[in-house]
Amino acid sequence: MLRGVSNDNVGPIHAVRWADEGIRLLDQRVLPGREEYLYCTRVDEVVTAIRTLAVRGAPALGAVGALGVALAMTQSSRAGWDEQQLDAQIDRIRAARPTAVNLAWGVDTVLPRRSDGVAAVLAAARQIIDDDQAANRELSRLGADWLLHRIPHHEKGIRVVTHCNTGALATTGWGTAYGIIHELHDRGQLGLVYADETRPLLQGARLTSWELTRDGIDHVVQCDGAATSTILRGLVDVAIIGADRIAANGDTANKIGSVALALACQRAGIPFVVAAPFSTVDPATPRGAEIEIEQRDDDEVLSWAGVQTVPAGAHGFNPAFDITPRDLIDAIVTERGVVRPPFAAVPYSPRRPN
Amino acid sequence: MLRGVSNDNVGPIHAVRWADEGIRLLDQRVLPGREEYLYCTRVDEVVTAIRTLAVRGAPALGAVGALGVALAMTQSSRAGWDEQQLDAQIDRIRAARPTAVNLAWGVDTVLPRRSDGVAAVLAAARQIIDDDQAANRELSRLGADWLLHRIPHHEKGIRVVTHCNTGALATTGWGTAYGIIHELHDRGQLGLVYADETRPLLQGARLTSWELTRDGIDHVVQCDGAATSTILRGLVDVAIIGADRIAANGDTANKIGSVALALACQRAGIPFVVAAPFSTVDPATPRGAEIEIEQRDDDEVLSWAGVQTVPAGAHGFNPAFDITPRDLIDAIVTERGVVRPPFAAVPYSPRRPN
Repeated sequence: MLRGVSNDNVGPIHAVRWADEGIRLLDQRVLPGREEYLYCTRVDEVVTAIRTLAVRGAPALGAVGALGVALAMTQSSRAGWDEQQLDAQIDRIRAARPTAVNLAWGVDTVLPRRSDGVAAVLAAARQIIDDDQAANRELSRLGADWLLHRIPHHEKGIRVVTHCNTGALATTGWGTAYGIIHELHDRGQLGLVYADETRPLLQGARLTSWELTRDGIDHVVQCDGAATSTILRGLVDVAIIGADRIAANGDTANKIGSVALALACQRAGIPFVVAAPFSTVDPATPRGAEIEIEQRDDDEVLSWAGVQTVPAGAHGFNPAFDITPRDLIDAIVTERGVVRPPFAAVPYSPRRPN
Repeated sequence: MLRGVSNDNVGPIHAVRWADEGIRLLDQRVLPGREEYLYCTRVDEVVTAIRTLAVRGAPALGAVGALGVALAMTQSSRAGWDEQQLDAQIDRIRAARPTAVNLAWGVDTVLPRRSDGVAAVLAAARQIIDDDQAANRELSRLGADWLLHRIPHHEKGIRVVTHCNTGALATTGWGTAYGIIHELHDRGQLGLVYADETRPLLQGARLTSWELTRDGIDHVVQCDGAATSTILRGLVDVAIIGADRIAANGDTANKIGSVALALACQRAGIPFVVAAPFSTVDPATPRGAEIEIEQRDDDEVLSWAGVQTVPAGAHGFNPAFDITPRDLIDAIVTERGVVRPPFAAVPYSPRRPN
C-alpha cells in the first residue's frame, strides 16, 4: 500500500477515487494533522482501511464497496483466483463493517456487471459516485429549502448543531447533513455551527471542523455532552445529522450520540433532521431494533493519542452507532424529497437509485 | 508548593486534608497515572488548585473553601496582611469557581469564627468535613433504601449509569451518587456500572473508574454520547448523578452532559436520581435559569493529551455544567431524606447544616 502526501488544500475534497489499478483514499485517521492518501491495490488493504476508518461515512463506504469489487477482480486476475476465491474476497469487503447499509449496497449494485469484466464494473462504480454527488447536491438544496420554510425568522442565519462528519469526507463529495449546512452558507442564510467532537474517534473535531475551516464556515467544536444543553438553551435552531442506515419505518442508525440530540430537539421544540442519500434507506430492515449495531474495540474509548485514560484493568463499552426512533425525527431529507412523519408515507419502494 | 507521592493504594481516599500549616490535596489532574499530593500553604496555590481542578467536586470544594479561610489567616500572620488584604484573599478563594455553591458556602460557614483565631476556624472547617462524610454515608443509605424499594426486581443487581466523579475524590470521603453505588455494592445489590468518561476532562474515565477499580466494583467506561442509547436500550435500571448546585425549585446544575441522561431516563421510564449533601441546595437561587454556568478554556475541548485535535484556527465551546430541569428528576437524595416532585415540598429552609 503506497502513501502519498498532497499539498492541495483548496478545491473539492475527493475522499474516494479509482486510481490506476486501485483505490485512492484520503486517510481520515491522520487528519487534520496530515493530509495523506492511501493507494489500496489489494482486498486486504481495502478491508483494513474500512475497519480502521481510514475511510468512513455511509455514502463513501458505498463507493468503496463498488470500487472494491473492481479492485478484487483486478487482484484476482493478477493472482489467478478461481470464482470461489473471488467470491470470498468480495464477501470480505461487503462485511467489513456491519451497520452502514451502503457498503453492501455498493458491492451488490455493481456485482451483476461482473461477467462483463472489470471495465464494466468500474463504470458502474463510477456511476454510483456520480449519482451520489448529484444526490448530495439535490438533497442539500431540498433540505435548505425546507429549513428556510420551516424556520423563517432567523436574524443571524440558521444556527445548526451537527454530529460526526457528513461532509465530502463521508461521501463521494459535498456531503449530506454537511451539504445542507454548506448550501445554507452559500445562500447567506447560515448562522453559527456547533460541531460535536464525536467521541471516541473525534470525527467532528478532526474532520468536520477541518471541512468547515476549509469552507470558511463559522463554527465551534463542543464536547458531545454539551449538545443537549446547547439545544435546550436555545443556542441553535435545528439539529441535522446523517445516517448509516434508515429502516423502512424511519428509525435511523447514526453515529453514537445522535439520539441524544433528537431527544433534546423534541424537548426544545426545534426540528431534528436526518439527511442521507436514498441508498441509505433499507427496505429490508423493517425497524431500528433489527439494525445490527457495530461494537468497536474498547481501546478507542480507553485511550487517546497513545495515552491510556483509565486505570489498568478497566473495561470499555463502545457501540459505534445508536438508533433514533422515528417519532423523534421531524424530516428525512433524501434526493427524492423531504419526507415527514408518519414515515409509512415515504416512497420506500425496494427500488434503489440507478 | 510541595509535592508528595503516596504508595498507599488501599484504605479510604482523603482528597482534602489539613496538614501542618496548609491544605493537602490529592492531585486529581494526574490520576489515574500517578497518585500525588499537593501541599498548599498560600492562597495563590489554593486558587490555582481549584481553577485547574487539582481538587474538584462540589462537596470537596466546600471543605477547601473552609480550610482555605484557615490557610489565608495563617498566611496573613506570616505576611502581616491587614484586614482588608485578608478579606480580599478570602474573596479570591470564594470566587475561584462560580457554579458549585459549596465553595462559597464553605468559606461563609467558617467566617464568623474568624475573630476567634485560626484554631477556631480550623475546628469549624473540620466539623464541615466530618459532617460531610456523615452526610454522604446517610444519603447513601437513604438512596439505596429508596432504589431497592423503587426497583424491586433486578436479577443481576441494580444496573447504574453515572456521570462525572462523585466519589471520595469529589467529597471529603465516601461520595454522593458514587456513595449510593458503593452502598448498593456493599449490600450485594449492585449490577454493572456504566461510567460516562465525562469529556472534556475525563473525570469519569480517570477518577470514577479509578475509585470503582479500587473498590472492586464491576464497571465499564463509555463515551458520553453512548449514555442515551445505553439507557434507551434498557441496559441500566437507573441514572444517578451528583450536583454542583440545586436551585430552590429542584432544578439541578451538574457536569456538562448530565441533562442528556435525564431526558433519556424520562423516555425510558427509569428513575433519574440526584444525590448531594443538603449544603448543595441553594435557597437563594429560585430556579436553574439563575445559576451561573462556568465557561472554561476552549483548549480543554480542542486538544487531548497535549495533541491538538482540531485544525488550526478552530474555536471551542466549553460550558462546564448544564441544568437539569426539575421535571426530569425523580428524586433528590440528601442526608435529610429523599424528596420527590413537586420539589416545592422539599424542606428547603435557608437553614444549612451546622
